[in-house]
Amino acid sequence: MPMLQVNLLKGYTPETKKRLMSSLTAVIRGITRAKPDAISVWIREAGNDEYSRGGVSRQPGIAAQDPEILVKTYLDAMEQRDLASAKSHLADGFVMTFPGSGELTSLEQLVAWASGRYRFVNKTISSTDVAYGMDRIVVVVNGTLSGEWPDGRPFEGVRFIDRFEVENDRLIRQDVWNDLANAGLE
Amino acid sequence: MPMLQVNLLKGYTPETKKRLMSSLTAVIRGITRAKPDAISVWIREAGNDEYSRGGVSRQPGIAAQDPEILVKTYLDAMEQRDLASAKSHLADGFVMTFPGSGELTSLEQLVAWASGRYRFVNKTISSTDVAYGMDRIVVVVNGTLSGEWPDGRPFEGVRFIDRFEVENDRLIRQDVWNDLANAGLE
Amino acid sequence: MPMLQVNLLKGYTPETKKRLMSSLTAVIRGITRAKPDAISVWIREAGNDEYSRGGVSRQPGIAAQDPEILVKTYLDAMEQRDLASAKSHLADGFVMTFPGSGELTSLEQLVAWASGRYRFVNKTISSTDVAYGMDRIVVVVNGTLSGEWPDGRPFEGVRFIDRFEVENDRLIRQDVWNDLANAGLE
Amino acid sequence: MPMLQVNLLKGYTPETKKRLMSSLTAVIRGITRAKPDAISVWIREAGNDEYSRGGVSRQPGIAAQDPEILVKTYLDAMEQRDLASAKSHLADGFVMTFPGSGELTSLEQLVAWASGRYRFVNKTISSTDVAYGMDRIVVVVNGTLSGEWPDGRPFEGVRFIDRFEVENDRLIRQDVWNDLANAGLE
Amino acid sequence: MPMLQVNLLKGYTPETKKRLMSSLTAVIRGITRAKPDAISVWIREAGNDEYSRGGVSRQPGIAAQDPEILVKTYLDAMEQRDLASAKSHLADGFVMTFPGSGELTSLEQLVAWASGRYRFVNKTISSTDVAYGMDRIVVVVNGTLSGEWPDGRPFEGVRFIDRFEVENDRLIRQDVWNDLANAGLE
Amino acid sequence: MPMLQVNLLKGYTPETKKRLMSSLTAVIRGITRAKPDAISVWIREAGNDEYSRGGVSRQPGIAAQDPEILVKTYLDAMEQRDLASAKSHLADGFVMTFPGSGELTSLEQLVAWASGRYRFVNKTISSTDVAYGMDRIVVVVNGTLSGEWPDGRPFEGVRFIDRFEVENDRLIRQDVWNDLANAGLE
Repeated sequence: MPMLQVNLLKGYTPETKKRLMSSLTAVIRGITRAKPDAISVWIREAGNDEYSRGGVSRQPGIAAQDPEILVKTYLDAMEQRDLASAKSHLADGFVMTFPGSGELTSLEQLVAWASGRYRFVNKTISSTDVAYGMDRIVVVVNGTLSGEWPDGRPFEGVRFIDRFEVENDRLIRQDVWNDLANAGLE
Repeated sequence: MPMLQVNLLKGYTPETKKRLMSSLTAVIRGITRAKPDAISVWIREAGNDEYSRGGVSRQPGIAAQDPEILVKTYLDAMEQRDLASAKSHLADGFVMTFPGSGELTSLEQLVAWASGRYRFVNKTISSTDVAYGMDRIVVVVNGTLSGEWPDGRPFEGVRFIDRFEVENDRLIRQDVWNDLANAGLE
Repeated sequence: MPMLQVNLLKGYTPETKKRLMSSLTAVIRGITRAKPDAISVWIREAGNDEYSRGGVSRQPGIAAQDPEILVKTYLDAMEQRDLASAKSHLADGFVMTFPGSGELTSLEQLVAWASGRYRFVNKTISSTDVAYGMDRIVVVVNGTLSGEWPDGRPFEGVRFIDRFEVENDRLIRQDVWNDLANAGLE
Repeated sequence: MPMLQVNLLKGYTPETKKRLMSSLTAVIRGITRAKPDAISVWIREAGNDEYSRGGVSRQPGIAAQDPEILVKTYLDAMEQRDLASAKSHLADGFVMTFPGSGELTSLEQLVAWASGRYRFVNKTISSTDVAYGMDRIVVVVNGTLSGEWPDGRPFEGVRFIDRFEVENDRLIRQDVWNDLANAGLE
Repeated sequence: MPMLQVNLLKGYTPETKKRLMSSLTAVIRGITRAKPDAISVWIREAGNDEYSRGGVSRQPGIAAQDPEILVKTYLDAMEQRDLASAKSHLADGFVMTFPGSGELTSLEQLVAWASGRYRFVNKTISSTDVAYGMDRIVVVVNGTLSGEWPDGRPFEGVRFIDRFEVENDRLIRQDVWNDLANAGLE
Repeated sequence: MPMLQVNLLKGYTPETKKRLMSSLTAVIRGITRAKPDAISVWIREAGNDEYSRGGVSRQPGIAAQDPEILVKTYLDAMEQRDLASAKSHLADGFVMTFPGSGELTSLEQLVAWASGRYRFVNKTISSTDVAYGMDRIVVVVNGTLSGEWPDGRPFEGVRFIDRFEVENDRLIRQDVWNDLANAGLE
């Protein structure tokens, strides 16, 4: 039964509005347990001369990029070893941690660190979760890794999870866990 | 500038309504990039004689439990080895996976599997993320483990992440990653 | 999908509000062809200090009586020949027409006119329709008559329809059609 | 004082919206007894990217035909003995009853039945009432008949009432009463 | 925190809507003491087929002229002794009062009365206040006068205040106070 | 036709809400020229758990005192020479100007300055105008003075106007004009 009305300044794309509606619906669903079919959302856009705060007209913000797409674009670039493209998605102060790596602050460090560990690795994603916080958006990706060990033997089905923090359309933090250490033991 | 009005049937607690408002605000914030102070939410509750769907009055749903509290209650029970209490939070069909464990379907299996791996383990949580999906709520907890190896040596600062799926106030799935394998190698 | 919000001054009974919601839903349903389950109505009541027109607070009106109940109460009184009670539901200027009667203006006239036509008559109502007009509410009742002819022979299953006009909780007009003339021919 | 806001998906014609507003106003008027001038209705249309139910965008329904026009178009076709056109407005399972006819299920049956009763008949409508139900719309037309008896004598001023049930823009039931039997007796 | 939604028929200019929003905000601010940044106003325009009162579509009114501009245009015309233009802003029944003048009813009377008092006078406006009443809008202008006495001596810095009543975009009353009498005494 | 909905946190008195509704109506009236009877205002109060800004619950403000009552209370105190009471309504930095007085900053200064000008003076107020600005509320009072000259002769019917600026329920500025200088000349 819950019904939402969302007043927005004009200027968001249909995709942004649909993402907004489905994300709001998921929150309502998760907290009130109402059936999805009973949750409706209405967006009402206002032109510049139809909204004021403090008596003054305002401009619409620029919608954030879809954080799920941001993360996948970054992971794709990394898999293709396109470091330049991957870097374009990183915020100043980006920090990443892999199992046993300690904190790394550049992709070059990561490449150096990984070089003795595997020849290459590909991710098969089974699910992606987006958690909206007031300051940062957290995107969590999990699935399995496949690739080759340094000696050329292949591996696959190794569980992994990546947790990203997103701020202003940039990745500010990446934390990675996986079972490569366990897999190596076999 | 975004403004939300949420129509609800009466019957949710103040805590539920506040959680609803802050979660909706975070979504709006994350997608529109509006400043938090510019995002307002108004809830409007309706009595039984003030709402109908299909011309018929409806009853309010029972709000979901706070999924973050659910997960922490479960983790506390597990740390205290209070399996009975922990089990009360599990859905039928609950499945859990630990590094190298394969799929386990009961807490007894887990205890048996873990017995050769460590004497005990405690979690220090650094952050908890809640992602609302239409079917399930995902709660991701990460931080560090401390405890004792089977030979009594202590360990600490071992990174972990737990991903839970919640359905109808019960845990339906738990996936765990940590660096214990790496830690053991050192 | 249609969603209605109705602002009202406080003071209407739960029954009136429910009747209002179901009648509005039926109109929405009939005109937009939306599925009933997709039509929601929210009533919002305002106290005296929460509403003004022309800058001045107003009093809520007195809800109209349910016109269907009004008509049935009148018909019951007539069946029981309780003319005093029946009259209490008639407006000044009430006019009624029966098959072949011409316009009658009092219940006494009706009784006199009917006396040679049947000993008594009872109505079995199969459906009642309420049509809201801006000036008057029209209530149409149809079903079958049973009773006795002046010579004591019984009759039953004779089709009838009564059309009433309601104004200010009083009946202002009653038009009756039935197949008694056809029935008498047999 | 009552104020209605109606949220709709875009796509209804101005005529449909005006019919919706006047019909809703009549219901509000009839139930709350508020003065017409004090009843305002605001329609708010939403584009496809401004509404979701269950997190999913929806399409607007196809508005129902004006049931009053439907009935009058059918009656006109019948008066002009244009059975093909008249039939196009009938639903499968259409049933009609005239005084003394029993249930008829086709227009041909009606023509056969009526042939011995009058040469032709025209309707002068004095009022039309539309009652919205959740399943069907009932349209009631009343007025007077004029025409010629089988022997060529004219008649006029014979009271009639037709009650129609409308479903999905088709007539599903027609029940007719009139005073022809009384008129014939004179 | 206060949030206003204003439903209007389409047809007002962006300037009118902005003036409306800032004036409403000022009232909300003045009465609730909420911080300006916390006061938002949303205007929602409706087309002709989206609004009805009494079930009937309505036309938008013609917005009033900005009363502050009206008064300043009139004062400019007077300073430039353009009586024809100034008169075009006066309502029938316009009355004005100056210190010691008694009620004057035409600009010609004013010119005659003023001729012995000063050669010319210019106004430097320090502030303009607009008070909205249900019947009339009051505009109050204050500041200082400069000009020349009849004998050619200049004066300046003489305080004045003009109170205007506006009705239907015309001035209906002007009341003037100033310190010329005091200034003349020095 | 304009319709306002005002969302407020609970806690304002009925008097404040009525003043708010009539002041908002006057603004709407003055700017759109809609007829008063066609302007409706609905207030919707929200409890603490029904409103958030930035995801955080807020407290209602403390309504401002009615500025018209504030000014009249101050003027009454001055007429009764109750300086202590009058002072309680003045803000730090209060400044007042009378005809020929220059800027005065205390009531004692005013009393001293006035002592040679009249024995006493009473105000008969003919109208009071309230202009809401974003920073200050301006209250303008005009009417006539009566009293006694220093030599005991009475005077009456002398036009005056007082312009007050109000901030945080205190008077921050008073500017006075009147025709006493002209009256004295007669």
